[in-house]
Amino acid sequence: NSKLKIFTLNSNRELAEEIAKEVGVPLGKSTVTRFSDGEVQINIEESIRGCDVFIVQSTSGPVNEHIMELLIMLDALKRASARTISVVIPYYGYARQDRKARAREPITAKLVADLLTTAGATRAIVLDLHAPQIQGFFNIPIDHLVAAPILSDYFLGKNFDPAELVIVSPDHGGVTRARKMADRLKAPIAIIDKRRPRPNVAEVMNIVGNVEGKTAILIDDIIDTAGTISIAAAALMESGAKEVYACCTHPVLSGPAIERIDNSVIKELVITNSIQLSDDKMSPKIKELSVAKLLGDAIVRVFEQKSVSTLFD
Amino acid sequence: NSKLKIFTLNSNRELAEEIAKEVGVPLGKSTVTRFSDGEVQINIEESIRGCDVFIVQSTSGPVNEHIMELLIMLDALKRASARTISVVIPYYGYARQDRKARAREPITAKLVADLLTTAGATRAIVLDLHAPQIQGFFNIPIDHLVAAPILSDYFLGKNFDPAELVIVSPDHGGVTRARKMADRLKAPIAIIDKRRPRPNVAEVMNIVGNVEGKTAILIDDIIDTAGTISIAAAALMESGAKEVYACCTHPVLSGPAIERIDNSVIKELVITNSIQLSDDKMSPKIKELSVAKLLGDAIVRVFEQKSVSTLFD
Ligand SMILES: Nc1ncnc2c1ncn2[C@@H]1O[C@H](COP(=O)(O)O)[C@@H](O)[C@H]1O
Ligand SMILES: Nc1ncnc2c1ncn2[C@@H]1O[C@H](COP(=O)(O)O)[C@@H](O)[C@H]1O
Repeated sequence: NSKLKIFTLNSNRELAEEIAKEVGVPLGKSTVTRFSDGEVQINIEESIRGCDVFIVQSTSGPVNEHIMELLIMLDALKRASARTISVVIPYYGYARQDRKARAREPITAKLVADLLTTAGATRAIVLDLHAPQIQGFFNIPIDHLVAAPILSDYFLGKNFDPAELVIVSPDHGGVTRARKMADRLKAPIAIIDKRRPRPNVAEVMNIVGNVEGKTAILIDDIIDTAGTISIAAAALMESGAKEVYACCTHPVLSGPAIERIDNSVIKELVITNSIQLSDDKMSPKIKELSVAKLLGDAIVRVFEQKSVSTLFD
Repeated sequence: NSKLKIFTLNSNRELAEEIAKEVGVPLGKSTVTRFSDGEVQINIEESIRGCDVFIVQSTSGPVNEHIMELLIMLDALKRASARTISVVIPYYGYARQDRKARAREPITAKLVADLLTTAGATRAIVLDLHAPQIQGFFNIPIDHLVAAPILSDYFLGKNFDPAELVIVSPDHGGVTRARKMADRLKAPIAIIDKRRPRPNVAEVMNIVGNVEGKTAILIDDIIDTAGTISIAAAALMESGAKEVYACCTHPVLSGPAIERIDNSVIKELVITNSIQLSDDKMSPKIKELSVAKLLGDAIVRVFEQKSVSTLFD
């Protein structure tokens, strides 16, 4: 009769608190600090011998710090005789480095999966991997959750007329995700079809599908520098859309992202708390939804050895 | 008939250039930068197929950045079909986390050794590990070099009268190192014997050995915040030493270190370039010696499959 324990590190403390409340356990007592020279110092302040332990940590920026914190805590928990150790990674960093696009590139998404296993992870729970194939990079069981239902339900609450709505994928890779949201909102889809007519000529944003007079909702997994999404939103307005919303699971929002969003035609940007926004990344246009219930449910089901797949829709 | 290639990352670019010159090969062409969100981007700009590759990188601060750079480059080189990949780590960070001193502590020095192997390292060349036992943490061949001869030869050049010289270990753990230097300088040793008479009473620095009227040389492996070394130097002067030099292999020099050294009775601090000093860590008291020849020789011998042990004295 094992016990469930949830620990957290520095990336998502607020989300971890929320998850622990959902699950109905207190957060495990631990501290993660730095020695004078910057090395990670971890103290686990309660026994976890024989327990089923879950560590909540996104490998968001500062990504290398967050990865090393996670690996070192895995090592500590493994040596402290945890029965199982599941890593709960709401945002899996380095996911875009998932193939050799050019010669001699690393495949860092696979490397990190192997590092987690080496350090002691026995299971992973992740959310909206950049490519679903990354599941195959793990040699341990992995549960892959999706946030599209949470994002969709928020827009359902706005009671748009489905006939005046269109869900838009900003690229070909995201059509499946857009389709999922469209099903839930009973709306059609459109696709932004970027193409470069000739080398060294600016890309053309061609829109496949009808957006005229409609409320368009752009959906993506990651919004990083917000270049694509703000240009896509402008293209939709030029093609006659009435208004443009945008949403994503993972608000990386690096570099000029906030400025671009603030200056864009996007009416509202809906995100999740898979990445905790720093104070300088706030914008009045941003609406944050929580994935705490989704992740909490997954943790309880994994612990009780029940199927997690029912959480997928 | 394989080729020898040397690559470097961001921790020790100058040392790597020097090593490459010693070995007589150009540094391998590569860049290591950051994407907008802080993720490491590595480009290896020449073929290394079938080569024996050496990567020079200390896991000095920012330690987590430098570890991840090294792991990602290992992944890239492995996938690019290197024949062997040796990591040349002049300063091995996290070496002080080499045992469970308290319950539920990680053993990060072992974790990092395993991460390097997982990422693709087939051999390691290291310098003055904090504890020689850390060699056993590696499941790949490891060559362990020592800098004591380089430090000793510098002091030999000062032509001290051996009868007026004493080599001092700042703690019990460092006596073997002090002995090695003393042999080379034909001088006796002394030991700083810290002890706390009662709980909550300040430590007493007792000196075992005769230092009166002598030039004392303190030798340590790492100088981090410089607390121990500056107090030890003061205790030596109080016990009648004529002057105090200090030396170490690894100048971590974090936090108040430079201020403490500048304000201490230490006449000169001799260090090596196992860690590249940032500009804000310069001090007129510091003399830097290079380990480039030592590491270069080791690389050539490993490549030629000759014994490296002759470099140990
Ligand atoms: N952190 C990052 N930021 C921006 N681009 C990246 C990042 N990591 C990888 N990439 C590049 O993004 C491309 C893959 O993105 P995607 O086509 O969306 O899967 C590859 O060419 C990668 O080199
Ligand atoms: N980066 C660090 N800075 C200061 N102390 C550390 C560091 N890493 C580990 N330690 C502690 O140093 C002690 C071991 O140092 P030592 O006795 O010199 O081997 C252990 O209690 C560690 O918790």
